[in-house]
Order: sequence, then structure tokens, then C-alpha cells
Amino acid sequence: MALVVQKYGGTSVADIDKIKNTVAKRIIGSRKKGDDLVVVLSAMAGVTDQLVDLAKKVIPAPEGREYDVLVSTGEQVSIALLAMSLEALGQKARSYLGHQVKINTDASFSRARILCIDTKAIKADLEKGRVVIVAGFQGVDEEGNITTLGRGGSDTTAVAIAASLCADRCEIYTDVEGVFSADPGVCSKSRKLNRIAYDEMLEMASLGAKVLHSRSVELAKKYHIPLYVRSTFSDNLGTLVTEESKDMESNVVSGVTYNKSEAKITIRGVPDKPGVAAKIFSALSGANIVVDMILQNVGEKNLTDLTFTVLKNDCKQALKLINPVIKKLGAKDATVDQDISKVSIVGVGMRSNAGIASRMFTALAKEGINMMMISTSEIKISCVISSKYTELAVRVLHDTFNLSEEGTPE
Amino acid sequence: MALVVQKYGGTSVADIDKIKNTVAKRIIGSRKKGDDLVVVLSAMAGVTDQLVDLAKKVIPAPEGREYDVLVSTGEQVSIALLAMSLEALGQKARSYLGHQVKINTDASFSRARILCIDTKAIKADLEKGRVVIVAGFQGVDEEGNITTLGRGGSDTTAVAIAASLCADRCEIYTDVEGVFSADPGVCSKSRKLNRIAYDEMLEMASLGAKVLHSRSVELAKKYHIPLYVRSTFSDNLGTLVTEESKDMESNVVSGVTYNKSEAKITIRGVPDKPGVAAKIFSALSGANIVVDMILQNVGEKNLTDLTFTVLKNDCKQALKLINPVIKKLGAKDATVDQDISKVSIVGVGMRSNAGIASRMFTALAKEGINMMMISTSEIKISCVISSKYTELAVRVLHDTFNLSEEGTPE
Repeated sequence: MALVVQKYGGTSVADIDKIKNTVAKRIIGSRKKGDDLVVVLSAMAGVTDQLVDLAKKVIPAPEGREYDVLVSTGEQVSIALLAMSLEALGQKARSYLGHQVKINTDASFSRARILCIDTKAIKADLEKGRVVIVAGFQGVDEEGNITTLGRGGSDTTAVAIAASLCADRCEIYTDVEGVFSADPGVCSKSRKLNRIAYDEMLEMASLGAKVLHSRSVELAKKYHIPLYVRSTFSDNLGTLVTEESKDMESNVVSGVTYNKSEAKITIRGVPDKPGVAAKIFSALSGANIVVDMILQNVGEKNLTDLTFTVLKNDCKQALKLINPVIKKLGAKDATVDQDISKVSIVGVGMRSNAGIASRMFTALAKEGINMMMISTSEIKISCVISSKYTELAVRVLHDTFNLSEEGTPE
Repeated sequence: MALVVQKYGGTSVADIDKIKNTVAKRIIGSRKKGDDLVVVLSAMAGVTDQLVDLAKKVIPAPEGREYDVLVSTGEQVSIALLAMSLEALGQKARSYLGHQVKINTDASFSRARILCIDTKAIKADLEKGRVVIVAGFQGVDEEGNITTLGRGGSDTTAVAIAASLCADRCEIYTDVEGVFSADPGVCSKSRKLNRIAYDEMLEMASLGAKVLHSRSVELAKKYHIPLYVRSTFSDNLGTLVTEESKDMESNVVSGVTYNKSEAKITIRGVPDKPGVAAKIFSALSGANIVVDMILQNVGEKNLTDLTFTVLKNDCKQALKLINPVIKKLGAKDATVDQDISKVSIVGVGMRSNAGIASRMFTALAKEGINMMMISTSEIKISCVISSKYTELAVRVLHDTFNLSEEGTPE
């Protein structure tokens, strides 16, 4: 008998039929195997978007306390419907909202972080043979205000609960078969990975593979929770996200990702002296704008060009914040390029293999794809390129590193 | 400066335009007059029905803990949208869910009763100049479960908060101009009442006038809260529901109501001995089925016929419960008549005026309308008639008691 946390995404609970006939039956199947179950749900597909659209009719850029009150209702609907479905099938169940569990978070509305989870009520229900159903994406701050964890936050709810309960594993059910070597919609030769290291998954999640919320992978890594990404609609095993092991290095690169959600801002004619970059970036971080890649070109006459990327959504506000700083510093101007994308290769095998970067750059150059920015870590290399080349670049890199061939054993 | 509780119904918050441009602006107008405001909201029109429909796709007769989790989301959406709208207009505001206030109720899901309300947080917010927005219809039980008060329960939330805060008045905003002498859709000569006594309103609410939730009127009476029923969409004063006063008696009858939601059950051949009725009705009350009117006919050979009315929705279950009792008692059978309606006249003036009943019965008889059951109190007379005569009966009684003429002074 294992203690398992299962998380079902929006497409898995898209309508009553899926809730009753797919998710509820899968849960009852797991119970019959003797497992204790905590189930975390997202909102029904499309519901959160509808709520966001409602809010946008009130104010163009909704945020803050009331926004979280609004958008947290989606999960409240799905957990109630699943609990009713399970009870109707004879399986005892009970739904929990963030504040009922309680899932304590900080007070950063719409991007809250989980601080701790009270597992008393969950454990008592499990002992009574109930399936415990928890609303994903939401928590409660110290003052009792509803908070949300940001889009995709239900993955994080699931892993955090698994960690708090010392669960045997956490299963993330979605509408794809697992984690792929590249987006199958872009690269037809892409292959489902059987296993992937936490660090690789972390890079892939933050680099644009939408299958898992980054924070959920961080937590799984920190608390050593085996994380399965699998399809709600099949019995295939999916991908196991787990500790790094020797055999994972047989493929130097595990996957290729791309991300079109960023824009590039270039500040020209910045005085090249200490403290200048700090002034610019502290203006942005003060507004919670995340800067991804940063590049500083050497310029002439003690002037330099500073280039960085931010989310397209943050671009307008970023410009508003840096324009007064530019004036003060005596820099020339700021220009924006929205037509970029970031293409990355990821793999723990890079640690022990030289020459990966040059193979990547050569492959891109051969197709005439220019790299505007490069960023590397121990296990990934990212390039910013013109967005029109995105799909081509993904396919070329997938071929270059032979990703359609099985490397990791089952 | 007064402390006012305002409640806006579903049609008042039917869409973003009404929330932003009607309700929010009305609230800001009240604030400008210097009033402190607590605002209670219903769900946007139609939303609760949609949620109920979802639940019915899971089980035909949804109820219980999870049902309340589901249907309470409607108000959560509307309070968040109003709070955002007020903030966008520069008026500080904060939304509260039942468990955040807290509105403590008993644990009777879907028909919970408010036990007490913690006003600490509300008072602190009012002192800070905030408009406090509270989700109607919902509360929380001792264990932290979400409860709901039954359809129309937001009126009760508003009056209970007004009572707890010792508010100067409670204003119920709706899509009609106030309480009418009869349903204007049925009786074109019906007149808006300027004032009505709590007891009259109580009778009218329980007799089918849908303008106020009965429990809300009980609370207003108990705590002497002046209750205004007015239109969200006009500046007319509406109807004041208040203490009974001498001048209210100038019209012996204040209003005519009708109710088509009940069915009549007749048990024939019941042994006429003590304890028999108790056995039948305790079977029903055990299942929380409310019996309205009861009539016992004298029969022959120590046998009697027992007739009573229940909600049409409860009819099927009622039969299921009484059939075994009938068998045990040796009664003949139970028959159901769904095609009935209850037409009633209400007025505190009846207390000091004789002959009202005979005027009512004569008027109905003149139109050939047969009365199947009669029930009276100090201030109302109800008749069960064939439902096809409902509208005719309402118009005849409205004419008979001259209800289109002004009786109560402004």
C-alpha cells in the first residue's frame, strides 16, 4: 500500500463526462490497488481564462487580492464535482480548499509561494478511507486572504502536499504521454522520455516546455519525491522525473525546448561604470519583473550597450520603469525587439562532454540562423534567435544530437 | 452619517456593465453622502442555476457538503468583481467570503441557519474607510465546512449582518420597484406599497411573493432593522418593511399572493384514532420535508381522509416515505394532485375587521372557483384552488379588497 498524490490538469477535468468516467474511475482503480490517495485538481479547461477575461473587463491589468478571490473559484468548482462523482460511485471523498487544508503561503497575490502545509485533516480523512481532493493553485496567507500560486500552480500544490505527507510518489496527469525530447507539434521525430533528471526537467520547464510548473520540480528535487508525468487518457507509464543517475549521461542532450514569450530590450549608449546595471535592474526587480538573459556589449568611448530579455507581457511596464533611469544616467535610448525566441538544449550529459556548444552553434549556422544572445549553465545552452527560425532550429538541434534515438534505458 | 447594509440581487450584478456602471456607482453615491457601507451580493444572474445544472449532471438530486462547496462559488465571483470595480473607481473596498467574516452557521448543508457573525474584521475595515463587500448565501460551520443558506439566502445574510452591526437600515436592491399589492405580471392594477409591516411581509414571503427571503424578514423583525426593498435601476424609494403601526390598518388587506410550487397529497381511509397523524408527519419531518397545509375530513366507519400539501419537489420522496406507514396503519391509499395553487390575502387590518373571510369566499364562489383547502392566521387567509384559476383569483381578490387604491400614507 502506497501513499500517492495525483494531480489532474484542466483538460483531464474538462467536462462532467471526463470527471465521472475518466478521472473518478481512474481514482477508484488506484484505490482498489490499495493505495491511499490525495488528489489535486486544476480548474476545468478554459474556466480560469474565462475568469481572467471577466476581470479584464473591469480593469485592463487585473491583479492583487480580489483577483485571487476571483480566479480561485475555478478549482473550487472542479473539486466539488469530483467529490460528488466519487461519492456517487460509492467511494468516500472530501474536498478541501486552500484555507481548509490549510496551505499557508506568503502574501504575494497571484504569485504566492507555499510556506507550509497542515496535514492533520488530510491524514485523518485518509485514515477514514476517504479520497482527499484538494484545490490546486490556491492557498491562504497569514491574515486569511486567499492567494494563488500563478498559472500552472496546481503542479506545485501536488508536489508540496506529497512532500508534506512524505508520499511515495506524485503523479501528474495531463493530456500528453509524458515529457518529450522536443515539442511533438514542432518536431515529428520527438520521442517520449522514460526518465529525466530533476535538473533537466527544471531547465526544460523554465525554458518553455509547458508540461510542469518549475516550482513543482524544485520541490520534488528538494524533497526527493519521484514525479511521474503521464496521460489521463491512457495506461502508458509516462515519464519519471527523478534523481540523476549515471546512465542518464548516455545521451548528452535530453531535450530541445523553445520559448516565444520573451522580448529583447536594448539600452544603447550606457556609461560604462560600476553601479549602472544595478540601477537599471533594481528598477525592474522592484516591480517584480523577471529579467532572464543579460548581455553587455563592449562599446566605444566608455559607452556600452546593455541587452536583456523580459516577458513580452512585462515589456511595456519595463520600458516605463527604465526610461527615467536612462535619462538620469545619460544613456541614449531603449529599443525593443518582440520577434525573438529562445531555443535551448538540455542534458545532464553535458557536464562530462566537451564540444556540445560548438556542435549546437555549427548546426544553427549551417542553416543561416543568427544567434543574438547566448546563455549557458552546466546542463543547458540557450540561444536567442529571430522567432521565424524557431521551429527550424528545434528540428535541426533534435537531429544534431540524435534525440529520436533511445538513450536512457526503461 | 449612517451605517447601511445594502444587498444587491443577481439581476443587479448580471454583467460587468451593471457591476461597474450601476452598482459600483450607486455605492460611491452612498459613500459621498457620508454613509458607512457593507454590501452583500448574490451571484450574477443565472450563475447559480448553471452550477446546479453541472451538479445535476453528476447526480440527479445533488445535496450535501460538496454541493455547497460548488454553489457558493457564484457569490465569490461577484464580490471579487465588485471590489475590483470599486478600487478602479478610487473607492477602497475589500471582499469577504462567509468563512473570512466569519458567518457561523449550523451544519445543515444547503439550508444552514446563521448562528452568529463575527463583526471585528468588518468594523476594522469600515474604520479605514473601506466598503466591505460580503458574499451572500454562504457561511461556515464549526468544522470549517462551507455551508449555504438556501436559495434567496443573500437577503438573510444582509439582514443578519445589519443586526450584528446594529446598522441604521438594510436596503435590499432588486429589479422591481418594491413590494406590490399583487404580482404585476398577473394583475395589471397592482400597486407598489410604500410601507408594509414585518408580519405582513413574512406572510407574503412565505406565501409566494418572491421579493424577500422569509428568514430575512424574521431577523429584521426580531432585531428591529428597517428594511427597504428598492430597485437598483431607479431612484424611487421602494417599500419600507417596518414595525406595525395604527395607520397600516386603513387597508384591511395589503396584498394578494399566489404559490404554484406545492402539491396536494390525500391519504384515504385512515383509521381515526390518536397518534395516526403523528406517525405520518414524523416520517416526513424526519426527512426535512416541510408540510404546509393540513386538512382532515370526517369520514365513515371510524375512517377519515387526511389531506396535506408539500413542495412539488418533495412530492416523490414524501410518497416513498408515507407508503410503508399507510400499509402499517391499514389506510387505503395516497393520491397526489399536482395541479393546485394557493391564493392568499394578507393584511394586519384583518385583526380588527370581521367578515374578511366571507368576502373572500363569496368573491371566489361568484367566479365558480372551488376551494379545496383553507388555512387562516390572524393576518392571512389562504385557499388551495385548481391551478388554472390562479390568475383569475388573484385579480378578483385584488378588486374585491380595492387594493389598487392608496391606503397607507407615504
